[in-house]
Amino acid sequence: MVTGNRKLEEEKVFKDPVHRYIHVRDELIWDLIGTKEFQRLRRIRQLGTTFLTFHGAEHTRFNHSLGVYEIMRRIIDVFEGRPHWSDDERLLCLSAALLHDIGHGPFSHSFEKVFDTDHEWWTRKIIVSDTEVNHVLRRMGEDFPQKVADVIEKTYPNKLVVSLISSQIDADRMDYLQRDAFYTGVSYGHFDMERILRVMRPTEEQAVIKYTGMHAVEDYIMSRYQMYWQVYFHPVTRSAEVILSKILQRVKMLRLEGYSFKQFPHHFEGFFEDNLPLSEYLKLDESVVMFYFHCWTEEEDPILRDLCTRFMNRRLFKYVEFDQDFVMNDWMKLQELFLEVGIHPDYYLVIDSSSDLPYDFYRPGEEEERIPIHLLMPDRKLRELSRESDIVEAISGKKRTDHKLYYPAEWLDTPGHEREKQQIKDILQAHPGKREPGL
Amino acid sequence: MVTGNRKLEEEKVFKDPVHRYIHVRDELIWDLIGTKEFQRLRRIRQLGTTFLTFHGAEHTRFNHSLGVYEIMRRIIDVFEGRPHWSDDERLLCLSAALLHDIGHGPFSHSFEKVFDTDHEWWTRKIIVSDTEVNHVLRRMGEDFPQKVADVIEKTYPNKLVVSLISSQIDADRMDYLQRDAFYTGVSYGHFDMERILRVMRPTEEQAVIKYTGMHAVEDYIMSRYQMYWQVYFHPVTRSAEVILSKILQRVKMLRLEGYSFKQFPHHFEGFFEDNLPLSEYLKLDESVVMFYFHCWTEEEDPILRDLCTRFMNRRLFKYVEFDQDFVMNDWMKLQELFLEVGIHPDYYLVIDSSSDLPYDFYRPGEEEERIPIHLLMPDRKLRELSRESDIVEAISGKKRTDHKLYYPAEWLDTPGHEREKQQIKDILQAHPGKREPGL
Amino acid sequence: MVTGNRKLEEEKVFKDPVHRYIHVRDELIWDLIGTKEFQRLRRIRQLGTTFLTFHGAEHTRFNHSLGVYEIMRRIIDVFEGRPHWSDDERLLCLSAALLHDIGHGPFSHSFEKVFDTDHEWWTRKIIVSDTEVNHVLRRMGEDFPQKVADVIEKTYPNKLVVSLISSQIDADRMDYLQRDAFYTGVSYGHFDMERILRVMRPTEEQAVIKYTGMHAVEDYIMSRYQMYWQVYFHPVTRSAEVILSKILQRVKMLRLEGYSFKQFPHHFEGFFEDNLPLSEYLKLDESVVMFYFHCWTEEEDPILRDLCTRFMNRRLFKYVEFDQDFVMNDWMKLQELFLEVGIHPDYYLVIDSSSDLPYDFYRPGEEEERIPIHLLMPDRKLRELSRESDIVEAISGKKRTDHKLYYPAEWLDTPGHEREKQQIKDILQAHPGKREPGL
Amino acid sequence: MVTGNRKLEEEKVFKDPVHRYIHVRDELIWDLIGTKEFQRLRRIRQLGTTFLTFHGAEHTRFNHSLGVYEIMRRIIDVFEGRPHWSDDERLLCLSAALLHDIGHGPFSHSFEKVFDTDHEWWTRKIIVSDTEVNHVLRRMGEDFPQKVADVIEKTYPNKLVVSLISSQIDADRMDYLQRDAFYTGVSYGHFDMERILRVMRPTEEQAVIKYTGMHAVEDYIMSRYQMYWQVYFHPVTRSAEVILSKILQRVKMLRLEGYSFKQFPHHFEGFFEDNLPLSEYLKLDESVVMFYFHCWTEEEDPILRDLCTRFMNRRLFKYVEFDQDFVMNDWMKLQELFLEVGIHPDYYLVIDSSSDLPYDFYRPGEEEERIPIHLLMPDRKLRELSRESDIVEAISGKKRTDHKLYYPAEWLDTPGHEREKQQIKDILQAHPGKREPGL
Repeated sequence: MVTGNRKLEEEKVFKDPVHRYIHVRDELIWDLIGTKEFQRLRRIRQLGTTFLTFHGAEHTRFNHSLGVYEIMRRIIDVFEGRPHWSDDERLLCLSAALLHDIGHGPFSHSFEKVFDTDHEWWTRKIIVSDTEVNHVLRRMGEDFPQKVADVIEKTYPNKLVVSLISSQIDADRMDYLQRDAFYTGVSYGHFDMERILRVMRPTEEQAVIKYTGMHAVEDYIMSRYQMYWQVYFHPVTRSAEVILSKILQRVKMLRLEGYSFKQFPHHFEGFFEDNLPLSEYLKLDESVVMFYFHCWTEEEDPILRDLCTRFMNRRLFKYVEFDQDFVMNDWMKLQELFLEVGIHPDYYLVIDSSSDLPYDFYRPGEEEERIPIHLLMPDRKLRELSRESDIVEAISGKKRTDHKLYYPAEWLDTPGHEREKQQIKDILQAHPGKREPGL
Repeated sequence: MVTGNRKLEEEKVFKDPVHRYIHVRDELIWDLIGTKEFQRLRRIRQLGTTFLTFHGAEHTRFNHSLGVYEIMRRIIDVFEGRPHWSDDERLLCLSAALLHDIGHGPFSHSFEKVFDTDHEWWTRKIIVSDTEVNHVLRRMGEDFPQKVADVIEKTYPNKLVVSLISSQIDADRMDYLQRDAFYTGVSYGHFDMERILRVMRPTEEQAVIKYTGMHAVEDYIMSRYQMYWQVYFHPVTRSAEVILSKILQRVKMLRLEGYSFKQFPHHFEGFFEDNLPLSEYLKLDESVVMFYFHCWTEEEDPILRDLCTRFMNRRLFKYVEFDQDFVMNDWMKLQELFLEVGIHPDYYLVIDSSSDLPYDFYRPGEEEERIPIHLLMPDRKLRELSRESDIVEAISGKKRTDHKLYYPAEWLDTPGHEREKQQIKDILQAHPGKREPGL
Repeated sequence: MVTGNRKLEEEKVFKDPVHRYIHVRDELIWDLIGTKEFQRLRRIRQLGTTFLTFHGAEHTRFNHSLGVYEIMRRIIDVFEGRPHWSDDERLLCLSAALLHDIGHGPFSHSFEKVFDTDHEWWTRKIIVSDTEVNHVLRRMGEDFPQKVADVIEKTYPNKLVVSLISSQIDADRMDYLQRDAFYTGVSYGHFDMERILRVMRPTEEQAVIKYTGMHAVEDYIMSRYQMYWQVYFHPVTRSAEVILSKILQRVKMLRLEGYSFKQFPHHFEGFFEDNLPLSEYLKLDESVVMFYFHCWTEEEDPILRDLCTRFMNRRLFKYVEFDQDFVMNDWMKLQELFLEVGIHPDYYLVIDSSSDLPYDFYRPGEEEERIPIHLLMPDRKLRELSRESDIVEAISGKKRTDHKLYYPAEWLDTPGHEREKQQIKDILQAHPGKREPGL
Repeated sequence: MVTGNRKLEEEKVFKDPVHRYIHVRDELIWDLIGTKEFQRLRRIRQLGTTFLTFHGAEHTRFNHSLGVYEIMRRIIDVFEGRPHWSDDERLLCLSAALLHDIGHGPFSHSFEKVFDTDHEWWTRKIIVSDTEVNHVLRRMGEDFPQKVADVIEKTYPNKLVVSLISSQIDADRMDYLQRDAFYTGVSYGHFDMERILRVMRPTEEQAVIKYTGMHAVEDYIMSRYQMYWQVYFHPVTRSAEVILSKILQRVKMLRLEGYSFKQFPHHFEGFFEDNLPLSEYLKLDESVVMFYFHCWTEEEDPILRDLCTRFMNRRLFKYVEFDQDFVMNDWMKLQELFLEVGIHPDYYLVIDSSSDLPYDFYRPGEEEERIPIHLLMPDRKLRELSRESDIVEAISGKKRTDHKLYYPAEWLDTPGHEREKQQIKDILQAHPGKREPGL
């Protein structure tokens, strides 16, 4: 039944440590927040295993989703009454902002890698299937859920609307950079969002930035760059991620081999069968995953037991740089040595790569086009950011990549196979990791 | 084997959003942090159900424990070389600060109420039994674990040492006020800790504050007062707490009655038997509790199913003030009406009380004596804070208490028993709750 | 010519370290800021001699006046469309907020004491006389300047409008508490203004605060209390103020006695004659005063020379508490001893008193009535703050007073009259000042 | 008399809004702060005319000098006990940090341009002549003042000591970036100084940065870049600076021509005679300059009168970009037109240039060599920053220059010479300034 949206009698307010207050005036939004699918985001951390590196980063996707909604609300406040902006899109934008991460599961990155699943696919599924979220959205019209899903998937025809949530400077990125900086406690990640919002302008194709706000945008790009390398790609976080993936890989293998679990992985069955109903997917959250990992610290299988114990008690792998020299010379040798020593290299000798493109301008025809940021010049013409900004020009298009090799360093000091272990150590010490960060 | 403590070759540093950096220079501390019992605190939230009111407050006891350690470290920096302070107590103080909450379980408040357990008892147990924590501590001497436990239990003979962690202005309180304010995002909770630390002085009996720092202490007392009523006793948080307690109470009852669980509460067995081994207690964390609650949303028992669904999806009880008038007039009537309507008042009509004494001076002979704060005056004499501070004098010894009645408001609008439900509503509307905060 | 106000084509924005941005959309406001009388406020420090205690506090009344304007603008944003608020008063409120301090001269407090002048009288004068400010205001109507003056003088019939700038919680106080805390660097002075503004409501008589904002108001009252005693009444600031007053008093005396100045005080002539034209008053700013003081460090008169040297080079007086004991026993004796030693007690033995009432409720009939703060309760009734708030109740109506005796301590260690100087020291040491703060 | 330094009985503390507290433990430092030459810095703004653009920036060189001292103190805390650091240099470093700006006069930039003076020359003069500062310094030995001057002039043999105050990352720059950002309220200027200090290490040649702190240094370099273009070279600030220089130029010319001043520029006589004694230089501060400017708003000479009125009342010049096109085509024409209209182009048509090199590595042989920043790598070798950091590499050595043409825009709208004025406008509009910032 299409009943539309009502304004709340009294505005609802959330206290938010990043944006101070989050304001809700629409019943539609209030009710979306109250759905069980949205409340479930309280049980999925925003930054996966990062809390094992930065102990402050225990915040969840619920937290972040409200923040993206709030930024979107403020953008729309600025856009109201301006050309190219239609107020009909307001609730669509707010809903898409709030729900853009609704399909995320626990530790998405690792699950997606091992089980070939995809949180974006689940996002659409949750929005268009028979869920509480869908029921609330349908009040705005039968096709409203579909529209929300289209905005999130970037297929919605109004490109301006899409750009607000999926461009190189959108509500999503602006929230997570600030929020993750706040919770980790790093000093990067700060930029003058208030100013950026004030100089954002709608155009037919995308939101653009008035020329006078260029320096605030430069600051934002630099924040983004620093956050990627200082936080998101932190080698200790990736070490935990590696272990997590290996746990999943081991469980999958054991299940295939008919291993007899003490605690059978009921909640993962759909993944093994490649046939996971939505209702089951929605039961998966971090507490469920942690429950199993906890139980599996007492399994018979030594690899599963060890990996789970490592994850629960933060006994992570150490790492070294894995570069060209490595590949050419030592990689095969190292695998052999691991086998000789009796350490299974599939689980205990793992390469992990990260790479980032801090900013890019438009290169038509490439697979994943990234919409560049445009400045609105005094003569009302648009100009791509890197043509005006020396700093952005200097880093745009420059992809940086980093490979690391993870392994259980403390095992190399246990008795037995001393000679081989020494050989392993010698190889690894020739390729040091550049820094040894805190817990 | 008593091997003592070594200084770390290189100081270890944690990035902390509240204290900026946490510095570890002692191998003892570093190794305590690495124990599985301490890592377990990552799975227990600092503020229990508060995240359902303030979405930012998702931080854990791990987070807080490091903070208390860091404040203790800074206090000792100020004390070094001063009379009454012996550097022999340094590692004892640091260990006690780090471990003071190690015995906490998930949602301690509710578990303690329903299962008659006690986190302080578990703290001692973890420190003096055969655990990783105990093994690390024993490097400092066979009696060192016992000493640490004594400090935390306030029975250690050196009262100065005890006061640093258990007085009205100690490392514990100074951390949690700031940390909880930071994560909730409220603007209370700020005070000038740097100044307080700089003017703290050791005496034989306790740490005292130089007169010049009195105003910083006033500010601290006011912060504490505001945090209690604005955050810790927030009625929405208590609503979630009420539901949580009722879940536990229901499970206990069903277990007693031999109810056949779909998901049997294995992890709670020790509580039912009143015989919980430490190894089992240590397996209990919030992910385990949440796992069960999640499963129980599909149990046969309608009360358990409903309460768990409420907790998972944040469908909380509403509340009204429960005061003298209520007791005299309406309380019995309301219970009867609930029964008539078919809502079990044991689970759905719950009184919850909070009370706080913002600051108290010494009243010898009372059961729980609270050591008052003393100022060190220009003439080197001590003077109790409230005798110098008008503000503190004004609020000291004044206990404030608040009772609320919780109930499932939305059920009163369902069909059936309309007349009785209207009667219930009339009674409740005569005793309104004073405010209706956000989600 | 009445031309009214135009909206600026493009909003003007000032970067403000306290409120982040100050927004100007009305040509009227923009042009008022550009007048020479308003620009003159850049040459008058907000906190007089406080920069000699807190070196950060070098900000001016220009700075503060913009801040008060901005807070008023935000209040009006909240009031728009609500009962009791008429948008016709908008520009009146904004103008009054911006201009409320326009009549201030340099070091107003001392000048007013010595020359019997009054900055409020000059404020009215500047607004209603033939000035640039007046010309800009008259665009809104011939009687508009008069209205603005009436609001500032609290005689304007619309009491709500008056209360926004002259009550116990108004735009003026909210700005200066935050701004002075920011510039001095003290940790008091913070409160959640955003929340207070959001819960302010217009009534016929005054702006009131919704009940839900009570704790933010408590925090504000406590901030105010701390700022008064920690910053505004700081004894070192008052020491500089004492010297400044004594310089003015000495100049007045010398002028009367026909002393022949090397640098004649041209700019003060109007004060001596008790006939200061507005054009002359407007020339007086801190650079002029400092210029004379600087020149007078080379005058013949030893008292004027000494006092000016002290002020320029921050050689301030020390102080002791001056209490009942002092009055009864030592005061006359001390004056005699000063005369014997050859130190003029009129200039070198000075009592200074401060007193403050942190919050007061309405006591009809008293000379200076202070409008109390009212809460808007859930039942739409008003209730005076101290009846709801335990903390405010505890401190309301409690006047705190402090007397100090200032004198040139270092002179007591110079050769000559050793016996008398020792007697002086003995008396003073029996009445110590409570603390010896930084420079 | 060489008496050396005593530790203060009790540490003195200044509240500082940027570094929170400034700690003084040495009598030498305490007494230097108390000298009249140092107190004089309270009367000289840190950022000259910037307060006319950013109203918050009213802080003085006194403020900044204390900050540089405090950072130096913290650096030395980190260096203590490390190789290459000798504690004998401690007081030398602290004194040099405190006094490095002691020779600055009011609006140094303009005075130096017009009167060919040099604040560095005066700094040495104040330190080595018969001043209070010199007397205090000589307690440490007859040659101590000379050493302090040498450090400031970069001729002291210990290059490490020099680098702490004069390199691309030194105590001076780290203070002013943070302080100026704080007072202007811009969001640039923040970097993690605490971390940089913690990873600074002494070497024989300079202070270097441990590899692990590279990203904090990148952040610092970017802050510096942004502060230069957003704050220090802000075109409105430069407009005020242009007017100020033109006032001085006019006064110099009038004095030369024997013009009869109403208010004769006594305090500038030494500059005209090219023979300014130190005692006279020390009398020059901003209040003296402002006093004259204020008086000169009533001079006969229309140019001096107009320029002073503009400066006092902030009636600044507008500006356009002055680029290659301008030089080739319109510059001569514009000057002619100004003469025709009767506006003296020497005073009213002014080119001002700014240029900055955000970071540079060592280029031996160039005139002003800038010591590059070196990282201390894991292998203990040094490596120049831009070889490790992509971002710094991208901007290093890239000089950016900007020329602007300033003129009195509002005069072009006055009656008379309409045709020529229109021609002028046409030329200027072809070269727009890129942005029109706030007051």
